[in-house]
Amino acid sequence: MTGPTSTIAPALRERLDRSKNAAGALTKASSSVRDDGLAAIQESLRSHVSQIVEANALDLERGAAEGMESSLQDRLRLTPERVQGLVDAVGVVRSLPDPVGDVIRGMTLPNGLQVSQVRVPFGVVGAIYEARPNVTVDIAALALKSGNAVVLRGGSAALESNKLLVTLMRDALASVGLPADSIATVDDFGREGAEAMMKGRGYIDVLIPRGSAALIETVVTESTVPVIETGSGIVHIFVDASASGGDAPDIIHNAKVQRPSVCNSVETVLVHRDALGLVPAIAERLLASGVTLHADETIRAIVPDALSATEQDWATEYLSLDLSLKTVDSLDEALDHIRRYSTHHTESILTADMANAERFLNEVDSAAVIVNASTRFTDGGEFGFGAEVGISTQKLHARGPMGLPELTSTKWIIRGQGQIRD
Amino acid sequence: MTGPTSTIAPALRERLDRSKNAAGALTKASSSVRDDGLAAIQESLRSHVSQIVEANALDLERGAAEGMESSLQDRLRLTPERVQGLVDAVGVVRSLPDPVGDVIRGMTLPNGLQVSQVRVPFGVVGAIYEARPNVTVDIAALALKSGNAVVLRGGSAALESNKLLVTLMRDALASVGLPADSIATVDDFGREGAEAMMKGRGYIDVLIPRGSAALIETVVTESTVPVIETGSGIVHIFVDASASGGDAPDIIHNAKVQRPSVCNSVETVLVHRDALGLVPAIAERLLASGVTLHADETIRAIVPDALSATEQDWATEYLSLDLSLKTVDSLDEALDHIRRYSTHHTESILTADMANAERFLNEVDSAAVIVNASTRFTDGGEFGFGAEVGISTQKLHARGPMGLPELTSTKWIIRGQGQIRD
Repeated sequence: MTGPTSTIAPALRERLDRSKNAAGALTKASSSVRDDGLAAIQESLRSHVSQIVEANALDLERGAAEGMESSLQDRLRLTPERVQGLVDAVGVVRSLPDPVGDVIRGMTLPNGLQVSQVRVPFGVVGAIYEARPNVTVDIAALALKSGNAVVLRGGSAALESNKLLVTLMRDALASVGLPADSIATVDDFGREGAEAMMKGRGYIDVLIPRGSAALIETVVTESTVPVIETGSGIVHIFVDASASGGDAPDIIHNAKVQRPSVCNSVETVLVHRDALGLVPAIAERLLASGVTLHADETIRAIVPDALSATEQDWATEYLSLDLSLKTVDSLDEALDHIRRYSTHHTESILTADMANAERFLNEVDSAAVIVNASTRFTDGGEFGFGAEVGISTQKLHARGPMGLPELTSTKWIIRGQGQIRD
Repeated sequence: MTGPTSTIAPALRERLDRSKNAAGALTKASSSVRDDGLAAIQESLRSHVSQIVEANALDLERGAAEGMESSLQDRLRLTPERVQGLVDAVGVVRSLPDPVGDVIRGMTLPNGLQVSQVRVPFGVVGAIYEARPNVTVDIAALALKSGNAVVLRGGSAALESNKLLVTLMRDALASVGLPADSIATVDDFGREGAEAMMKGRGYIDVLIPRGSAALIETVVTESTVPVIETGSGIVHIFVDASASGGDAPDIIHNAKVQRPSVCNSVETVLVHRDALGLVPAIAERLLASGVTLHADETIRAIVPDALSATEQDWATEYLSLDLSLKTVDSLDEALDHIRRYSTHHTESILTADMANAERFLNEVDSAAVIVNASTRFTDGGEFGFGAEVGISTQKLHARGPMGLPELTSTKWIIRGQGQIRD
């Protein structure tokens, strides 16, 4: 462990050491004490609303002066109502079942050894994210609930907001006898802090990037610690020959329009040639909501308002009121297209054909595969996980919506009576 | 996905593409067809024993000419009996339950959506390992059983052996209608092949290094694909004040002597000051088996034959008939020592004190934590997993002995009847 971490500056190393020690102390804290910590965080945020909004105003002022886009300013903004939203979110996390200690597997071996695999905290969870101060509170709460210490690296645009939020949460933990270092930030170390997290083997047990594709790409390629890749979604809906004309327009409209900026919104609709009769109704609903359509020539002949789609459209995660449409001759062609362009997040088939539904479920290699429903259901809240860690698009450890159990590792416990191996 | 993989040479990229396509085809192959493939591999190895031994002889000759250590030559050697051992191992893998399709969680949401989380193959599993040709067959068989394609990169010292083994296995798959590309090697690309696997995002879904600490370190630090770290074990046994004098010498002897070259053998024994009376019996058994003891001065006063231990001994994975011994004043001191020097593989406490046992189980942060038994039990075979993928020492995805389920990912399947999100 000396090699890769030896380049970390002493002050940063000391910070990470404190997090590691806090993680050790947290393993001795009962679930109810950790819940007390969450309640103290709620109380502290509630009683410092005006200070939080003031700190956030400094970030907003700096952002405006530097020409920050208004959509980013909106993500950065904390109003009294939004602070209350954070308090409520911590309350939801607090009310969830604690995954720590759950027994996943267990057996008694022929020699009498009692073996069980139990959930344990990871230890230190790292999070690197962009200018959304709500992530600071969300991730800290989820980590604490699952018995982990957390090291945060937020976007510099939210520096003042995050600084105060972290201070308030640390003080809250200390007030109930939990180590303040359970929640730490390396924002004060700038880029060097993020570097240390990515290279911090022996300090950071798992690193979760949340934000733009570029941020996630950087963290995945530069990290030597284990990473859970979250994110991007070039999401498809395949309208099969037998799709219900009643449902298809509603489902596609919902998947695109309900919240276009998120990763589970649909980006490409593949239409079976025999279902082209549904296109006018589908297009009409989308166009009425201001969606810009990018389509192949077959569909443009039906929907003249659609722009001409290029290869680039199939490979684009719009995250906006844009949608590409393509005609396919068969389920196989749809599967080929998805294999080529999907980011393996979510795909849905609209069909009345059971065999095609089963083939789609089996052959599409994505975190979530859906039959006859909107892609927007790939979501921790919808699954009943209560809180949003992120949606994993990798196959290791967690895939799809991540709940509290995904923030834990496991440990094998073996109880013997003097057994030795033959 | 274009950035990191764009530096892969076209011929190598084509090889990896073929593996990816084979992985896609494998998702359509039933469990019984994959078992037929395993049976065909057994038959092919069995009917080519002399050719395998001849190919291996070429590797052994080259090794001897290049001055290869005799222990490495032994690992490299394939005799007719060892080939039969490989055939038998494939048979064991074949007899295990197929994890693919197992439902892990499932629920019906309030809106009627039926959600289930099922095990699916990773897709393409990569393995980078050293000069043990048995790993070639073991990993290929485990991958096939769990529905994965595999890309192998073995040590150059086993080039001829691996080349023939891979050819035989590929031909066997083709003979039952499975894609030969389900099993591929990049050995013919040398170092460049290993590089491509480590940087092969979009091609390699998980990469498993097996071999020396240096090999594992390289793979972990250089890879941008997800890695399961296996490996090194600085394994401790703590002899508590109340340890049984009857069991302790046997357990420690077993943990050190039964197979000293493997990762779950004990390297350091911590002795509570109140248990020093057990040291003569412990030392006697070890010395009689030729173990070299490295001890602190307190224990050397009891065992004059022990060498003087230095700081370096506590940090060494001997993998040999060497053992370090240290006196501690308390359970806390033992836990501190373990926290500092353990590689988080396996630790055991010998005690009659229930409270101390529970504290040890709770506070030691290792893949396996044991009470009153040998550390040698951290083993897939002992756990009933039937085959050896490796022992994970990381906390992400798999921790401890890895069975077939650890070679799978999961997928969320959602069945609806037209649901849209509010």
